[in-house]
Amino acid sequence: MEMASENQESVGFLSRGCCWFTSFMRNLASKLVLEPARTARSLAREDPRRIIHSIKVGLAIALVSLIYYFDPLYEGFGVSAMWAVMTVVVVFEFSVGATLGRCVNRGIGTFIGGALGVAAHRLASCFGSEIVEPIILAVSIFIFAASGTFARFFPKWKARCDYGLLIFILTFCLISVSGYRDDEVIDIALTRLSTVMIGGSAALAICILLFPVWAGEDLHHLVADNIEKLGDFLEGFGDEYFKTLEDGNVNFAKWEFRHGKFRFRHPWGEYQKIGGLIRECAFRLDSLNGYLKSEVQTPQEIREIFQESCQTMSSESSHALKNMARAIRTMTSSYVAVAKSHIAIAKSAADNLKSLLKTNSWQQTDLLQIIPVITVASLLIEVVSSTVKIADSVHQLASLARFKKISEDDASKSDQRNTERILRSPSIEGSHGLTISVE
Amino acid sequence: MEMASENQESVGFLSRGCCWFTSFMRNLASKLVLEPARTARSLAREDPRRIIHSIKVGLAIALVSLIYYFDPLYEGFGVSAMWAVMTVVVVFEFSVGATLGRCVNRGIGTFIGGALGVAAHRLASCFGSEIVEPIILAVSIFIFAASGTFARFFPKWKARCDYGLLIFILTFCLISVSGYRDDEVIDIALTRLSTVMIGGSAALAICILLFPVWAGEDLHHLVADNIEKLGDFLEGFGDEYFKTLEDGNVNFAKWEFRHGKFRFRHPWGEYQKIGGLIRECAFRLDSLNGYLKSEVQTPQEIREIFQESCQTMSSESSHALKNMARAIRTMTSSYVAVAKSHIAIAKSAADNLKSLLKTNSWQQTDLLQIIPVITVASLLIEVVSSTVKIADSVHQLASLARFKKISEDDASKSDQRNTERILRSPSIEGSHGLTISVE
Repeated sequence: MEMASENQESVGFLSRGCCWFTSFMRNLASKLVLEPARTARSLAREDPRRIIHSIKVGLAIALVSLIYYFDPLYEGFGVSAMWAVMTVVVVFEFSVGATLGRCVNRGIGTFIGGALGVAAHRLASCFGSEIVEPIILAVSIFIFAASGTFARFFPKWKARCDYGLLIFILTFCLISVSGYRDDEVIDIALTRLSTVMIGGSAALAICILLFPVWAGEDLHHLVADNIEKLGDFLEGFGDEYFKTLEDGNVNFAKWEFRHGKFRFRHPWGEYQKIGGLIRECAFRLDSLNGYLKSEVQTPQEIREIFQESCQTMSSESSHALKNMARAIRTMTSSYVAVAKSHIAIAKSAADNLKSLLKTNSWQQTDLLQIIPVITVASLLIEVVSSTVKIADSVHQLASLARFKKISEDDASKSDQRNTERILRSPSIEGSHGLTISVE
Repeated sequence: MEMASENQESVGFLSRGCCWFTSFMRNLASKLVLEPARTARSLAREDPRRIIHSIKVGLAIALVSLIYYFDPLYEGFGVSAMWAVMTVVVVFEFSVGATLGRCVNRGIGTFIGGALGVAAHRLASCFGSEIVEPIILAVSIFIFAASGTFARFFPKWKARCDYGLLIFILTFCLISVSGYRDDEVIDIALTRLSTVMIGGSAALAICILLFPVWAGEDLHHLVADNIEKLGDFLEGFGDEYFKTLEDGNVNFAKWEFRHGKFRFRHPWGEYQKIGGLIRECAFRLDSLNGYLKSEVQTPQEIREIFQESCQTMSSESSHALKNMARAIRTMTSSYVAVAKSHIAIAKSAADNLKSLLKTNSWQQTDLLQIIPVITVASLLIEVVSSTVKIADSVHQLASLARFKKISEDDASKSDQRNTERILRSPSIEGSHGLTISVE
């Protein structure tokens, strides 16, 4: 009897164990295989250049490790050949600008660090004593490492040569320390510098020659897309999220030399300014959106009074923004002029609205009902003034980067074609209101 | 005559040259010496831990490079001893969490990369052929480097082990490639692993033992400071800029083990949530500030109607926020209860204001003059609801992190002392208005 129940128990235990094990394995498989596979597919679909980048990195490393296979090259460098492989791994970044920045940083850091390392070694070996030499080296390592680390806190240096300072410290330590053992310090330093240069130029060559990704081009299109999104929002009062412009992007773009339509010394700083103005305008559109979503309705007769000016302001600002996006995208300054003509209309609508607000025909209306419409109207006025600022800085960009010109007729014709395509009417007709609630 | 004028010219030229040279040298000196010195002083004054950090890094590197000086150690590791120095340079970060994260990443990356590198080498040497071996190695390097690079795009991995993946690729390449020359692959792999571990533990030991900087502690105080600033702003409607909470901080804090008042598994994620709510509230305060700065004045008699409720809302929200900051700073949950009592008063003031807006006593007033005050009032109502949300998540944090309790009497007494110190009255009395202008 006892045996049977024990058996049963152990069978139950076993089957439960099996169940648990199966579900565990299924979970494990989904965590380790299915989920990553799904993420990988969506990452690749989002930006196929990611796959190309990975293949480029693999190729570059495999190519450089060939140094080991060819005897003449190996005999020249010896074990130091691994510095070339290391450099490729560490230096290869997604965009040309970032890779170039890291290469230059690594090159200069290695050069200065190596030179100072050799100098420190010479100074120490002058004394010749077995006790003084290591002390001098340790003290010089301490001084350079500590001051190099502190220099990395400098905001300007952090943005430009944080990596270079790290490599400077690294090379200084390696050269001065290994110099204590080997007397061919200069040889070591030169080998290290040349292997770093071989690795760096291999990485750069593959990065630039095979399907290059230009940080500047990305930045350029991101700014145009964001302006276009503002226009879309005003056209349909939709809900949009903006990719933010990070300062890093601009820094990478600055490293890049002339490519495609972008000259050397392209005014990348302007993109940063425009990005800031876009963000400001987006904040305003966001509060506009908040009012449009809320529940209290304004009576039809009040809305009708404001409707025309508000419609004009939003649709003209939308056209202006879209023309600016087109100006940036096609690098054509004539569209900026078209945008300015739209802005002029939006401004006069704003003036109309202001004089409307100053009349005293509001005496008999319920305040709570009228506030939302007035808030929407005043936010739209602010959006118009944001658009003016964006237009000014796009104009600045167009003249600094020497955007090309086309005849004004062509520009306004293309504008009209786009205007006709826009069938949706601006949704100032939608519900507006302001709910005040504290839960 | 000609000679004299030539002489004069050359003297003029010389003196101009001297002038130019002096001013050039002065500029150079100020650019290269004075400016950096000024920046360095302000950086050190802003956060003296930066100097300590630099000294710690110098010390750690100098200590580890001693390996080279002691013959027994050097004979064990040979040239590979430099990996220990390299590890210290690359791994030592400002906070304990960041250093620990990099150490763990480097250790695990080296281990897995080394193991797979040895395996690839064994596989390749099985074939024994001089042609097949390099091909197999190159193909395996290509596959691992490309897939490792692609894995770095995974958002989860990027946040947690981007550096580890880089080190994995690096070690795999170095071991499998150097294995082609040296037959003692396992030796190489083990030496590399042990030198990395020596360097990493030296860096960690100095980072933790000498004046440690805890990322979690910084995060904790940053959140408390930001809540306090919101309170200050409401008290004086001042102009404040907020240091933003970066996700990186939270990631570093997660690496840190138990220290000071922070247990293992401290709810760091909650800080991120509170940070988001603080930012939301700060946006609202910012638009409030915009209205207070503008020029149109609201007549005294209208302002007086709103004044009491607005004053109550802003001062009570301010007290609530300051008590929450105190709750976080002292890790005492009783202050959250005090904050909630202040919020209750602010809420009832908001209700008063809403019913005031619903009455129809506004028929005879000029609309343009009344809008600004109403906007300020409705923004204050939104600020109160933001404060409620912050209080909820601080309450959540207090219960998850088991903040200590003190008697309610003590808590409210300390609150009263602080209330009495606040002499400035909330500046809803200041000028409010809304200027609508499009240039």
